[in-house]
Amino acid sequence: MSFKNIHFVGVGLIGGSFALDIRGIHPKAKIYGIDSNDDHLQKAKDLGIIDESSSLDQVHQSDLVIIAIPVDATLKVLPAVLDNISDHTLVIDAASTKEDICLEVINHKRRRNYLAAHPIAGTEYSGPSAALKGLYKNKTNIICEVEETAFKLQEKALKLFSDLGMRIRYMKPKAHDKHIAYVSHLSHISSFMLGKTVIEKEKNERDIFDMAGSGFESTVRLAKSSPDMWTPIFKQNKTNVIEILDDYIKNLVHFKELMQNEDFNAVYKEMEDTNRIRAILEGMTQIEIDKEL
Amino acid sequence: MSFKNIHFVGVGLIGGSFALDIRGIHPKAKIYGIDSNDDHLQKAKDLGIIDESSSLDQVHQSDLVIIAIPVDATLKVLPAVLDNISDHTLVIDAASTKEDICLEVINHKRRRNYLAAHPIAGTEYSGPSAALKGLYKNKTNIICEVEETAFKLQEKALKLFSDLGMRIRYMKPKAHDKHIAYVSHLSHISSFMLGKTVIEKEKNERDIFDMAGSGFESTVRLAKSSPDMWTPIFKQNKTNVIEILDDYIKNLVHFKELMQNEDFNAVYKEMEDTNRIRAILEGMTQIEIDKEL
Repeated sequence: MSFKNIHFVGVGLIGGSFALDIRGIHPKAKIYGIDSNDDHLQKAKDLGIIDESSSLDQVHQSDLVIIAIPVDATLKVLPAVLDNISDHTLVIDAASTKEDICLEVINHKRRRNYLAAHPIAGTEYSGPSAALKGLYKNKTNIICEVEETAFKLQEKALKLFSDLGMRIRYMKPKAHDKHIAYVSHLSHISSFMLGKTVIEKEKNERDIFDMAGSGFESTVRLAKSSPDMWTPIFKQNKTNVIEILDDYIKNLVHFKELMQNEDFNAVYKEMEDTNRIRAILEGMTQIEIDKEL
Repeated sequence: MSFKNIHFVGVGLIGGSFALDIRGIHPKAKIYGIDSNDDHLQKAKDLGIIDESSSLDQVHQSDLVIIAIPVDATLKVLPAVLDNISDHTLVIDAASTKEDICLEVINHKRRRNYLAAHPIAGTEYSGPSAALKGLYKNKTNIICEVEETAFKLQEKALKLFSDLGMRIRYMKPKAHDKHIAYVSHLSHISSFMLGKTVIEKEKNERDIFDMAGSGFESTVRLAKSSPDMWTPIFKQNKTNVIEILDDYIKNLVHFKELMQNEDFNAVYKEMEDTNRIRAILEGMTQIEIDKEL
């Protein structure tokens, strides 16, 4: 079950990191790259991420196509890729939204060649020079409507993810988009607006630099993320994102009111109740959390 | 200029980390610990952070007293320490607020023995077992109203901070509290409320754990922080914190409205404008930032 000819559509952080690891697992595979940005293609060649650049009309030669481009571009490129593949080609995407994308190809005659995936991994950087070996090790890969993919191709994909060290979660596209709005998309808005607020307020940027140690740096890290990637995500997942953003704003307003009313016992309780996030992030079960608290 | 007898009031993360490094610099010094928590004192002894426990009426023996306890306790303990010291004792605090604390001792007959400091360093953990060697290396230490401290004691303090690898910024207490509200205190509220919002929304905590990779973990890190430490900070710095929290909420509401109005060009611009935080955090000058953008 080794891949011989692989096409990457998008050779940035996500696609590039897949390519670096897949090259180790399938050393004989020829790896092609397609990207709207010629500089990225050249850079990906220089870094050994891809062997050669290619084009969409060549994907029929491939037994594996991985699409890792912004979610609005995925909506257009995925059907075009499916139009061009051969019978046995496995197509995987890595988009951070799943509902619109799955809907777009639901009636495509090659729907069974496509596996809808979202690897929960990345950094705040982008482009081929941000690609990292081992990025996907021990990370979760969310697979949506797996029953729509041909069984033989499911098997090939799962073997690949297992070789990369990923764990699998199965979800419906609608549920995926809702949960990911809570746990990923909101964090990005929270971070971007934190960066904006502090930049607006601090006339002297040297003050930000000198005083940033105290937690600001990690909280604002995601504000370095690419607007090209994130604008289409917020557009496609608008309803879920607005819903959770609204809850976030309400919680902040409530916290502010507690401070204004000098109800610092309640302020204490807000923080104490939220401290359980530590145990949650460490993957402790509810019983273990209760025991520790 | 070596210290022979040092008292730590508070042997947690901040005091304990100072003790670990100071022991390396002044290996002959005897280090005493005072803490309201007996378990912490025992733990600090077990970890070699302090040699012996002590009490406030013993601080007159010391040439250095470092106070690293919550800011409300600092308000009460600092005058008591100053009441008990000898002529040559240097007293340093590490509190995250400075205005109320400096005001509290402005007319104390030993005011010139006290240096008001805020080392911008820490982690989301607390207690003596969270103490770390090298925590202060390359970190900023903000010193407030330095002119109120006797010159000879200033010199001793600066030598110590330099030995620890810290860089110094001088600020007025009022300015300190304002800037630190922007760059540190707001981050903590943003993070606590993010954690709260996601916990409330996700009925199944396993979903948080599985999907947390995508940035959530770093954005929510500060929500593990101690309510005992942070409640008094928010209380003492209430006015500044409410002001910046209000700005933050306004920016979030504006972002939400842009999404509701489907003005995704403006959403893009919000993020693009904020991307400059990367250069700011890397300490680039305005000219270098302009060149890069």
